[in-house]
Amino acid sequence: MIRANDPTLHSWIQISPESDFPIQNLPFGIFQTPEKDPRVGVAIGSYVLDMCVLGQYNMFELIDIDPTVFHRPFLNDFMALGRPTWRAIRNRVSELLRTDNEEISGNSELMQKCLIRMTDVEMLLPVKVSNYTDFYSSLEHATHVGQMFRDRENPLLPNWRHLPVGYHGRASSIVVSGTAVHRPNGQTLDPQEESPVFGPTQQLDFELELAFVTGKETTPGSRVSTEEADEHIFGLVLLNDWSARDVQKWEYVPLGPFLSKSFATSISPWVVTLDALEPFRVKGPEQVPRPLPYLDFTGHRHYDINLEVLLQPADREEISLCHTNFKQVYWNMSQQLAHQTSNGCNLQVGDLYASGTISGSEPGSFGSLLELTRQGSTPLTLPDGSQRSFLHDYDTVIMRGFAEKEGIRIGFGEVKGQVLPAV
Amino acid sequence: MIRANDPTLHSWIQISPESDFPIQNLPFGIFQTPEKDPRVGVAIGSYVLDMCVLGQYNMFELIDIDPTVFHRPFLNDFMALGRPTWRAIRNRVSELLRTDNEEISGNSELMQKCLIRMTDVEMLLPVKVSNYTDFYSSLEHATHVGQMFRDRENPLLPNWRHLPVGYHGRASSIVVSGTAVHRPNGQTLDPQEESPVFGPTQQLDFELELAFVTGKETTPGSRVSTEEADEHIFGLVLLNDWSARDVQKWEYVPLGPFLSKSFATSISPWVVTLDALEPFRVKGPEQVPRPLPYLDFTGHRHYDINLEVLLQPADREEISLCHTNFKQVYWNMSQQLAHQTSNGCNLQVGDLYASGTISGSEPGSFGSLLELTRQGSTPLTLPDGSQRSFLHDYDTVIMRGFAEKEGIRIGFGEVKGQVLPAV
Repeated sequence: MIRANDPTLHSWIQISPESDFPIQNLPFGIFQTPEKDPRVGVAIGSYVLDMCVLGQYNMFELIDIDPTVFHRPFLNDFMALGRPTWRAIRNRVSELLRTDNEEISGNSELMQKCLIRMTDVEMLLPVKVSNYTDFYSSLEHATHVGQMFRDRENPLLPNWRHLPVGYHGRASSIVVSGTAVHRPNGQTLDPQEESPVFGPTQQLDFELELAFVTGKETTPGSRVSTEEADEHIFGLVLLNDWSARDVQKWEYVPLGPFLSKSFATSISPWVVTLDALEPFRVKGPEQVPRPLPYLDFTGHRHYDINLEVLLQPADREEISLCHTNFKQVYWNMSQQLAHQTSNGCNLQVGDLYASGTISGSEPGSFGSLLELTRQGSTPLTLPDGSQRSFLHDYDTVIMRGFAEKEGIRIGFGEVKGQVLPAV
Repeated sequence: MIRANDPTLHSWIQISPESDFPIQNLPFGIFQTPEKDPRVGVAIGSYVLDMCVLGQYNMFELIDIDPTVFHRPFLNDFMALGRPTWRAIRNRVSELLRTDNEEISGNSELMQKCLIRMTDVEMLLPVKVSNYTDFYSSLEHATHVGQMFRDRENPLLPNWRHLPVGYHGRASSIVVSGTAVHRPNGQTLDPQEESPVFGPTQQLDFELELAFVTGKETTPGSRVSTEEADEHIFGLVLLNDWSARDVQKWEYVPLGPFLSKSFATSISPWVVTLDALEPFRVKGPEQVPRPLPYLDFTGHRHYDINLEVLLQPADREEISLCHTNFKQVYWNMSQQLAHQTSNGCNLQVGDLYASGTISGSEPGSFGSLLELTRQGSTPLTLPDGSQRSFLHDYDTVIMRGFAEKEGIRIGFGEVKGQVLPAV
């Protein structure tokens, strides 16, 4: 285990025990302030550490890195330097922040310049997304969808247990947490009617997902084995795959979801490194039948990450809709990456690979309203007496996630977005 | 009509009447030579015009442009300047090349520096593809596929005549003509077997398509009407959507084609501008039922472009497999762009939007082997006696296209790729 994960580590910065960002986490993001143009930051407690300023003060001089790489509007150039550099930088930041180090804490000018309160920064999209794949890797979610739309007795299609089903999503409309999402217009067909109509979706939904970002490209024709996959994964974010269910139902045959998804996909601003999640590796669900050799893997490749979805109606309190866990997702990230490249498809720096909706087997663990309300047929009743089959205008959807062990909490912060009326 | 399209124009460069690149065409591309790093060029006859050199010689000083935009490895930065600038530059190049202009032809030093024989340059991928959508807009192709895989009597799915069906493709694996393509590995299920196997595809196919490139971005939430679409379209390229049919058949439910397509997509190197194609606008097929208002359009939005696919087996001559025409594609580019943005999905500079396989109704006009051989059940017999159900290793697939009228031929050159054995 690398030193930055040491559970006994403490920082000279006061960090609340409930914080998502202890010294063992140190996720990377992009921020700006009225005075500072977009740049790389690291989250620590309720502060953002300005990596540009640390570079200007020669805090990385023992690492083979051009620190201007932190003065960019996306993490891509930093990620392209490769895992040894990510690790060296994260370990160095850990060192600078620990109790016995005075390089920052003993330099009040530097400290004032490099530490900014989170409440004073605007977080931006952390990654320029090169390619976006959305998998469909939760057995429970695929089963629920299959039961509703295909066959109650045989909900899974024949290919599902043999490969991580996935499809290409739209990269341009991936937005950072906090971005409002207009209810999209689209074509839908009322089952009672002969012809479709065009207008605002009546079935706007969320999908709870986690996604990983790749920081190491490959050449066309080459493959990434399950053993090699971790070397390509920079880190993970929360992802809300907003979906217009009525549009999806009408458009998706035979080539898959298209405009029902491409209006917006929200991600959390802090990329939690795979290294920070190392202590939370767990065994995943048993895979039956055993996958083909190219999807086989050794060791523990699943991660124990608690996930929650909350709904905040306009001017109301947050209401928890779902609790679930990333560890029960059937196909793991190593298998997804091995599958994605099994045909020689090349990876690029900044690719985003999402899990697909993460659902458990109990109702309180379903990661979409589609499942929570059985296609809207059993609406949720909220504390104020209002009902929800699908999202209303001005509803805010919030997703949170964290891993926790030995008193150390590695959190993702949140991905949040408010629904605005159709344009 | 802009002057650059004047059919009476002639250049001081000798251009064969069969050339794809008369002075009325002037497509843009990216080239390099052993002496010159990647940069923008314009095709004229059998030469490439070096736009960087023209900029250095102040040939664009009356146009509001920073000519270093031509010293880039992709067209994106030039495209981002917008249609008025594309037009001004194309008109200026036309002026420089016409018989009565001596700014280049009278300056032997400049002429030697700016004109390079096509045989001496390497053409590169012209566009950094931001997002790639593949439509499915040929009625005949959709009908043939529906007849083979679904229902002989009702081959079209209910949505097909109401919207331009499309899906997101993989941007990273788009390659320029001339790039060899390794036969991909993938999962397939033999209908006689219970379990899938992993190995080289046995059903490697091509798909004949045209694709357009956008040069004007939009903001999330905004829409592009069919009337506004042309302002966003920089130009068109030929596209070969290589497909592994056996992989596709097994993987594509329920989320669409994925690894069966993402191993490689080839495009031609010269982007033919929409302005150069202006004289070739024609009325398209009648659309019944009439599309919803957001897909309605005025004027002629289809283009009369002849297309051909040729097969060149190893050490053999080229054999023509198919002749068809772009004008019969049901959904036009304006409708595709209006549909793509109807949900507020934002466009980016460098997006690529492909037509889907272009097929006619007669066997000699089918744009894929899937259709030409009816899923391989009626193989083609080649002049050397060999048969083709699907592509063999070392086969080269060549696609060509041109529009022609009043003795003026606006050609696309070709997109070409050889199949190499699986890695």
